[in-house]
This record gives sequence, C-alpha cells and structure tokens, in this order.
Amino acid sequence: MAGPVQSIERAAAILRLLAAGPRRLGLGEVAASLGLAKGTAHGILRTLQHVDFVEQDAATGKYQLGAALLHLGTSYLDVNELRSRSLNWADALAARSGEAVRLGTPLEGMVLVVHHVFRPDDTFQTLDVGSLLPLHASSLGKVLLAYGAASLDPEQAAQLEAYTRHTLVTPEQLTRALAEVRELGWAAEIQEMSMGEAGLAAPIRGHGGLVVGAIGLSGHVERICDSQGRPRPSQITLIREAARAISRDLGATRW
Amino acid sequence: MAGPVQSIERAAAILRLLAAGPRRLGLGEVAASLGLAKGTAHGILRTLQHVDFVEQDAATGKYQLGAALLHLGTSYLDVNELRSRSLNWADALAARSGEAVRLGTPLEGMVLVVHHVFRPDDTFQTLDVGSLLPLHASSLGKVLLAYGAASLDPEQAAQLEAYTRHTLVTPEQLTRALAEVRELGWAAEIQEMSMGEAGLAAPIRGHGGLVVGAIGLSGHVERICDSQGRPRPSQITLIREAARAISRDLGATRW
Repeated sequence: MAGPVQSIERAAAILRLLAAGPRRLGLGEVAASLGLAKGTAHGILRTLQHVDFVEQDAATGKYQLGAALLHLGTSYLDVNELRSRSLNWADALAARSGEAVRLGTPLEGMVLVVHHVFRPDDTFQTLDVGSLLPLHASSLGKVLLAYGAASLDPEQAAQLEAYTRHTLVTPEQLTRALAEVRELGWAAEIQEMSMGEAGLAAPIRGHGGLVVGAIGLSGHVERICDSQGRPRPSQITLIREAARAISRDLGATRW
Repeated sequence: MAGPVQSIERAAAILRLLAAGPRRLGLGEVAASLGLAKGTAHGILRTLQHVDFVEQDAATGKYQLGAALLHLGTSYLDVNELRSRSLNWADALAARSGEAVRLGTPLEGMVLVVHHVFRPDDTFQTLDVGSLLPLHASSLGKVLLAYGAASLDPEQAAQLEAYTRHTLVTPEQLTRALAEVRELGWAAEIQEMSMGEAGLAAPIRGHGGLVVGAIGLSGHVERICDSQGRPRPSQITLIREAARAISRDLGATRW
C-alpha cells in the first residue's frame, strides 16, 4: 500500500501555519517556514485557494484561511459522537453547578474544546469551542494525560510552559499530579493557567472502556474552590456523575 | 506555473463528501462516490487521517471528519475581517431589534453563516455559525446574489429548490426579486425557507465598494413583519445602519 501523499501533508502543514498566527502570510513566508521552494508552495496555495481552504487578500496578495474550513469544522462537530452524546448532560451539569462546562478531546498534544456551555448567568462569555488548551495546565488535559488518551511529545515534556507561578513545570510535579488524578478519578487545575481561574474535570470512557475525552467545570477560583482553597466536593460529584452518564451512553461498561 | 495539485483537490473532495452526509463512510463508498480507485482513495484517506483531518472508527473501519478541522475552522473565524469588524455592530443590532442577527458570506453557491448573535431572550437557540443557507431562499443570500457577491451555478439556477410554497422557484421570480433588492437596498425572505419564519438583510461593502457580505435579522414572521405582512420599516432601518457602519469600518467609501 502507498505511503502518505506528500502534497496533502504539505497542504495540511500550510493550513496549520496559517492557523497558528494572527497575521496573513505572503508566499515567501509560507515557503520559508516550511522549507519549500516558492513554486511548490505556490502550486499548493493556488489549489487550496481553488477549493476555498485558503483566501488571498486582494490588496496585499497575502494568504489566510478560507471559508470552506469553517463549514468542515462545524460538520465535524455534527458527527462527533462524544459531543452529541454529551449535549444534554453538559446542559444539566451547567444548570446544577452554576458554572461553565467544557468538553475536551485530544488533538496534537493539546486539548481541543468540542463543546462549551456558558455559565448560567448573564455575564459576557466567549465561546471556547475549537480552542486548544495545554495538556499540563488544564483540568481537561490532566485527565487526558492521566488516562493515556493524550501524551506530551518529548519536546513539550522537556519544557513545560509556565502560564502562572502555579503551573506544574517539572516532569516530577506533573507525574505526581497525574498519579493523583488516577487515584482520585478526577483532576483539578487551580490558577495554573490563569490567576483567579480554576477548573475540575473527570474522564469520559468510550466503548471498550478507554478514556476518549474529559468533561469539566471552569470559572473563578473562589467559586470552584472552598475557603480553604480545596475543590468543592459537591461540584466534583456533579462532574463525575455527568462523566459516568456520558460514558454509559457511549457504551462503556466499566468506568 | 504548475496547475492545481490533483491529490489536494481529491483530498478536498473527500472532506466535502464526509461533511455532506450524516453518516460515516466506508472506503468503498468514498472511492465510488468520487470515481477513484480504492487504492488511491485509501492513500488519501490515510494521509488525511495522519494529519487529523479524518478519523477512522475503530469498530467499523469507516471514516468521518477529524478534530483538526474544528480548530482550523475556528481559526478562520479569528482572522476573518468581515466578522471581526462586525462583532460589536451585530451585538448592538440584536439588542436594538430584539431579534437574532446573522452575518453571511458567499461559499460555493451558498451563504456561509460566519457570525450569529442569539435573539436577546432566554429561549433555546442553536448556533448557526458554519451552516450553509440557500442563496435564493434566504435574505442574506438574496443580498449576495443581487449585488454580484455570489452566483448560482447553472445547475442550481435551472432547478431552484422549493422549501415552502413561498420559495421563489422560477428564474423570472428570482430575477424580479433581485432587481427589487437592488432598488430598495435590502432584501426580505418571508416564509420562503421555513413556514412561520422570515428574514431581512442588507449588503456590507468592503474596501473599494464591492459587496463582501450581508447582515440581517431572522425570526418569527409575526415579529419581523407587521400585521399586513410587510417587513417592519423600523427593523429595516436598524439593519441598514448596521450594514453601513460595518462597511465604513471595512474601508468602503461609498455604500
């Protein structure tokens, strides 16, 4: 059987590159970033433009992601079984806990947020669906790491990014934390990604019992934790019940 | 300069095929739908899987869209200038009109919804971002057609789909309606896509004055239209003011 198709891998790398930065990129920047000849990069970009995966700015000639990707991304959500099985449970969890609920699945050494229910109040909130969270500094990510659903690549593991002074940045701290997650059956992240914010999460198991995702709450640290700074047991119970219910719906027989 | 890269076009066609249906597809179905040899389709699918654009169901071996597309789709929204310039105006329009606001841009003979502000009440609403609407049966689409920002391909134009008994299904009806849109400067769609629902929209112009998108309201026909069944003039004024403000922000000097 044939190996991977090089031009498709290169096209995917160009799309990733365009997704990574806030700016449009010129042909020279794209070619140089990926070590491609300009003619090669141009042929791929023209094809991506032809299929609406890339748009070219008329004034500057620079490239950015195209509209067809939005429709494909939304279509991914429509067929995602983890998400569709979780919708009702996530709504109920937000209503019962009074906090925002997020559902995460592994993607390329990070956590992809595939569902987000806003905290049930009238404050302004931004939809996180499609965002990527760090594995070591989010409760969703710690769950995915602890149960082997995701892994850090060696480069990431050697240099864990410090988001706050509470972020776990040494492999020893992280290893200890993940062992604790496995022992308790849930993960906490307390001001490790953003000061004043905290999160709690539990694993979702799929058919066969493997962990396929995580569901959790996130919000102000004073609301997620009690006055001693410990995660509120009542919230943990709610999350674990939701995670178990979704796992059961996904066909997991043990959790 | 080289022509389009065939394998990338084929990969895009496979992704479109997977996005079109509600079901996962097997290798044979993918190959047959696109007229490819099974070996060719398999090589492309394996590569798409390798870059997380496609996922293979472990139990059935069937294919579905992959998680990386969600992140790319969200990244498209982040760099979309039409959308970013419209966010505040869309919020204000929803607040003032009391109706849901949607922003559309052309994609492949349809309207892609790139922003959606819910109607400001507590009713259950589904996010339409990433959805595709028909050009001839939505107010956003009529605007894009009327001002040449989108066009129906000959096959679509020859057989306009009837969603309700009010849908414009003959080329003559549609041509007349589009001339009226150009004369009035706004478009209405009254129970043409769904009984009981209506929409109003106005054009957004970009740098140079060309129409690049449309913004509009949609909701229950009794709220969008008055007791005589005519679009409420006060709502039209609000939409046109929002469209003009966004056009100005995008650098249009005439509108």
